[in-house]
Amino acid sequence: MSDVVNFESHRHDIKGVKITSDVLLVEEALEININGQPFTVTMRTPGDDDALIRGLLHSESVIHQEIEIQIEYKKDVENKATIANVILEVQSISKLEFSDRSMMSVSSCGICGKTDIDALDLDGDKITKTCQLSLHQLNNLFTTMEKKQRAFLMSGGAHAAAIFDNHGNLLTIKEDIGRHNAVDKVIGDLILSKTYNNAMVLLVSGRTSFEIVSKAAKANIPVLAAVSAPSSLAVSCADRMNLTLLGFCREGRATCYSHFERMVIL
Amino acid sequence: MSDVVNFESHRHDIKGVKITSDVLLVEEALEININGQPFTVTMRTPGDDDALIRGLLHSESVIHQEIEIQIEYKKDVENKATIANVILEVQSISKLEFSDRSMMSVSSCGICGKTDIDALDLDGDKITKTCQLSLHQLNNLFTTMEKKQRAFLMSGGAHAAAIFDNHGNLLTIKEDIGRHNAVDKVIGDLILSKTYNNAMVLLVSGRTSFEIVSKAAKANIPVLAAVSAPSSLAVSCADRMNLTLLGFCREGRATCYSHFERMVIL
Repeated sequence: MSDVVNFESHRHDIKGVKITSDVLLVEEALEININGQPFTVTMRTPGDDDALIRGLLHSESVIHQEIEIQIEYKKDVENKATIANVILEVQSISKLEFSDRSMMSVSSCGICGKTDIDALDLDGDKITKTCQLSLHQLNNLFTTMEKKQRAFLMSGGAHAAAIFDNHGNLLTIKEDIGRHNAVDKVIGDLILSKTYNNAMVLLVSGRTSFEIVSKAAKANIPVLAAVSAPSSLAVSCADRMNLTLLGFCREGRATCYSHFERMVIL
Repeated sequence: MSDVVNFESHRHDIKGVKITSDVLLVEEALEININGQPFTVTMRTPGDDDALIRGLLHSESVIHQEIEIQIEYKKDVENKATIANVILEVQSISKLEFSDRSMMSVSSCGICGKTDIDALDLDGDKITKTCQLSLHQLNNLFTTMEKKQRAFLMSGGAHAAAIFDNHGNLLTIKEDIGRHNAVDKVIGDLILSKTYNNAMVLLVSGRTSFEIVSKAAKANIPVLAAVSAPSSLAVSCADRMNLTLLGFCREGRATCYSHFERMVIL
């Protein structure tokens, strides 16, 4: 399934209306089961489901990054959604908590679907790696990401995430209708390609709220930089988790909110 | 609790680094219980919790809009979150499905936390109201909303949603760190002020994906217009739900994706 589709729309402007062919980003439901038991449903852009699922299981602490998994896919009966079944040895699973109704207490975006505050890990993992970065280097990373935001350039509707190593090399870039999915995809992609330990800088195209900071910390990535604003909780969690959080990275500028020591001042 | 906080950050640009006072949008966890039983947790911007909870219970079909509710609030023991307990007569509840672990199968954003595809109502409610709108009128509604996006103007981090009546009067505008929360807040606010039936146009400041279309349809609002792009599923659901969906409403232009008949061409 493609990640974009063509659609005939009506474009209104001061001159009147024109029928045009537009490109829309695809959003489709993905039901994820583990060993045949329901885990979660996420609305995502198709095309990188292996990476998305691997990253999500990592972000939610279901399995360790060194565990290999197999995934079987099928379409639902009405062909409206994809159903993935993750096959796991039971002893590999860290945190499955099936209820008597076979539903799990973890959810797809790190927040929604959790039913009490104790399920939120606001303190989270402390990052143990570090690196140094100048504003000039950061600007170059964003330029690299922007050039590769194919689905965004076509549809205007995709969030992007990209991960770079300590030398500024692009390790992976992914796009998705959901900000959290784009981040799960890049982390999952590094796990699948066994380059996970090289991750040093995570860029995201939008805003940063708690769940993005939480996913970066879980993946032990020391720098998270975003094009737009962070929330108050993103900043306070980044501070506790030893993460350097940057926002408003655009037009050659950047604002740093936590762990300023990783930013080199030239 | 305020919806914005001041924070000291480091602003990097070509001239070096400057310590500045920044304004951040507040993100805090809200645990929602119903009659003392866990319902969901959502990360939201404080300040309109009554409206948010009322709108969410409506969007998730837990209770009908004519049912009045009482809500008690307290802080959690660590003062990191707000806990709301909704007091409801059991016979008012349409769709509570407590599992044996007292967790519910509905979630806060319409998608995440659901564990199988059958829980997604992709066909949804069909809108029974209608109205007519010109591009010029639509532009005026966006101008009205933009002037009132106080938290966005201060922090750059807030999504906005606004609802207008058939005469172009602003009924309500709300902001939030979460796009879906902003929509739940405006719908909830109209239910609380008993102006729910006057809602004709819903504006949102960002993109539109499935859950926003679904909330508009559930609230029987015939026109949904966004500053940015819709997803493929937003468009196909809007078409089925009898909703006029517009995107890229900026710089005096707008693109219409479904039910074109409500747009007046002058």
